[in-house]
Amino acid sequence: MRSELAAGLAERAAQGLYRRRRVLESPQGPVVRRDGREFLNFCGNDYLGLANHPEVVRAFALGAERWGAGGGASHLVCGHTAAHHALEEELAVFAGRERALLFSSGYMANLGVIAALTGRGDSVLEDKLNHASLIDGGLLSGARFSRYGHADVASLQEKLAGCGSRRKLVASDGVFSMDGDVAPLPQLAAAARSYGAWLMVDDAHGLGVLGANGGGSLEHLGLGQEDAPILMGTLGKAFGVCGAFVAGCEELIETLIQQARTYIYTTSLPPAVAEATRASLRLAQSEGWRREKLRALVRRFRAGAEALGLELMSSDTPIQPVLVGANEAAVAASERLAEAGVWVAAIRPPTVPAGTARLRVTLSAAHDEAQVDRLLDALAEALRP
Amino acid sequence: MRSELAAGLAERAAQGLYRRRRVLESPQGPVVRRDGREFLNFCGNDYLGLANHPEVVRAFALGAERWGAGGGASHLVCGHTAAHHALEEELAVFAGRERALLFSSGYMANLGVIAALTGRGDSVLEDKLNHASLIDGGLLSGARFSRYGHADVASLQEKLAGCGSRRKLVASDGVFSMDGDVAPLPQLAAAARSYGAWLMVDDAHGLGVLGANGGGSLEHLGLGQEDAPILMGTLGKAFGVCGAFVAGCEELIETLIQQARTYIYTTSLPPAVAEATRASLRLAQSEGWRREKLRALVRRFRAGAEALGLELMSSDTPIQPVLVGANEAAVAASERLAEAGVWVAAIRPPTVPAGTARLRVTLSAAHDEAQVDRLLDALAEALRP
Ligand SMILES: Cc1ncc(COP(=O)(O)O)c(C=O)c1O
Ligand SMILES: Cc1ncc(COP(=O)(O)O)c(C=O)c1O
Repeated sequence: MRSELAAGLAERAAQGLYRRRRVLESPQGPVVRRDGREFLNFCGNDYLGLANHPEVVRAFALGAERWGAGGGASHLVCGHTAAHHALEEELAVFAGRERALLFSSGYMANLGVIAALTGRGDSVLEDKLNHASLIDGGLLSGARFSRYGHADVASLQEKLAGCGSRRKLVASDGVFSMDGDVAPLPQLAAAARSYGAWLMVDDAHGLGVLGANGGGSLEHLGLGQEDAPILMGTLGKAFGVCGAFVAGCEELIETLIQQARTYIYTTSLPPAVAEATRASLRLAQSEGWRREKLRALVRRFRAGAEALGLELMSSDTPIQPVLVGANEAAVAASERLAEAGVWVAAIRPPTVPAGTARLRVTLSAAHDEAQVDRLLDALAEALRP
Repeated sequence: MRSELAAGLAERAAQGLYRRRRVLESPQGPVVRRDGREFLNFCGNDYLGLANHPEVVRAFALGAERWGAGGGASHLVCGHTAAHHALEEELAVFAGRERALLFSSGYMANLGVIAALTGRGDSVLEDKLNHASLIDGGLLSGARFSRYGHADVASLQEKLAGCGSRRKLVASDGVFSMDGDVAPLPQLAAAARSYGAWLMVDDAHGLGVLGANGGGSLEHLGLGQEDAPILMGTLGKAFGVCGAFVAGCEELIETLIQQARTYIYTTSLPPAVAEATRASLRLAQSEGWRREKLRALVRRFRAGAEALGLELMSSDTPIQPVLVGANEAAVAASERLAEAGVWVAAIRPPTVPAGTARLRVTLSAAHDEAQVDRLLDALAEALRP
């Protein structure tokens, strides 16, 4: 095993694709410690700055005292506590759906939903830039799996027109995780409807952030349950904790309880995690200023970056990638930023298409304007030709 | 969507396969509250009774205060904290392996490992009673996937002999989750070695429980890294929290960091979860009396059940299924137990093969002898012909 795997690792290193972890010595936040030094942090997904909110932390600690450490079993055996149940009910209200179901991660939710709803003889159609977990769900389902061009409604329509399956599922990120753009959801919904397909939206990066009430890309675009009957949201990004949920009609949720293998055959999240998430869900709804501040920081960043001539992507969300191109160049730019005390992750293939390595800047309501300005200065310096 | 899914739900109900959740109103433990009443609980996987241990709970609450609520990003971007890192190092020492890697759940670990190590042209061979996540990993990998008879080494050898792939992975539960029996690991290891295959052991239900030091089914059977180069363990059962790890040689762990999609493309667990698990890992090692007490309770249960003529399976582990057969009969028995204030889950297909519905009794070091005796009395009553 050793020598065979070592050869693969060496090959990867030669392509500039070796991944290394950094050890964080502080909590997440706008300023973090690593390697004994402080860094301005523009890598995290804590968009609303709730991962460290004292009320969330308190709910977490009290939850551990109230419920103990672990769920102790799967939801269907005896691991479903009143804490999980209350969170599901609150998520359903938040999402404006009949019901919601908790999963341990967004990855598991996407796998579970697609494989529960489709199988041999069905078809799954996905945006080619969808998150890995949606893609894997499509592959695992056993359904005929195809990808349409990124945000390309005509390409989807063509595939739907040529699809003979009775059951068809169209799945798209709401906000694309590595590009930051919002999917053309009204057009996807119309296409799905006209071909009798179900639309599933993974709004991992939209919920809490987009829409006047944080209802995500669907609220932002004025769409509801009839348009996108399957909504997946994660709890480890804007909500600052971990886990995920699926929301939709009663029959959808009951079907998932009966059939989603990643729901049935796994340990429930610690109930304390559910309590922490209940607290952050309340804050995400009541503290609308976080979304407004975040939008203002996004505008400030884009204006500054455009003035510097940086190559931005067409995103109005807190995900603001700066295109670099070559793998080594992206890594080198990330290292120059680190020397300046600014932490931005370099994202390389296969996470993004070959030749589009980038610095993935993410903004949070926990940042302030001066920090965004320091980021811009550091980018100007690091990307100077 | 509604009417189509409703039809599937009705069909399932007609087969006696409808699954309903119960809402736990108390923490996990030997006695729990549900529906406003107390129950003796023989459903959970908290084998060592650590899910509520005050030191674990304290570490959890302090962890939340120290680290905040969430990891905030994936491990490779900026979500890997010193808490996660320390837990990985401690797990490697515990498992007697060079390194260990944390995953958010056992389900994700199994998917990630198998799909990272095998692909088109390779072969994955699995025990037919393996956990759903190992099966799904095999399907997702794209490798040629086949199942050998349960614990049937000759069947495995035959499949290995007929297998032309260069890379072959054999995967088995260490302790089978619904039967409680231990896999014939020395024989599986020998078969794998003689055909140049890698053996992966999922010891979700063995770690912490079996072996003098809680090293699991491998320690119990005197096997090491050379015999089973890939070890997967979960942290939500004997360790009482949640999550999972994979342990093995340096090259294996580095390969998983580079290639396991369920590791790369997901949010890290809250660092507080890692701190709680560090505490429970220490207790699992230092408090050997928990394992001894548990073994004595298992012996007491088996002796009592045999005296009653109950149909046990050949298990010496804390998983002690009582075979019933028909789906409705298993559910009815579980309901009669509940009337007597004893909670044992009825397990039906597809979790177990058709015609083998059972009451899955699980024991914990948190139980006492009197509770086991009450369980036996209640089983005698509930299963009276
Ligand atoms: C679009 C999208 N979907 C799903 C996920 C997976 O969610 P989780 O981190 O909860 O597994 C992520 C990120 O991790 C994501 O960006
Ligand atoms: C044998 C086995 N492997 C893997 C898992 C999955 O682990 P987790 O609950 O951490 O997802 C389980 C149970 O849940 C199991 O019984």
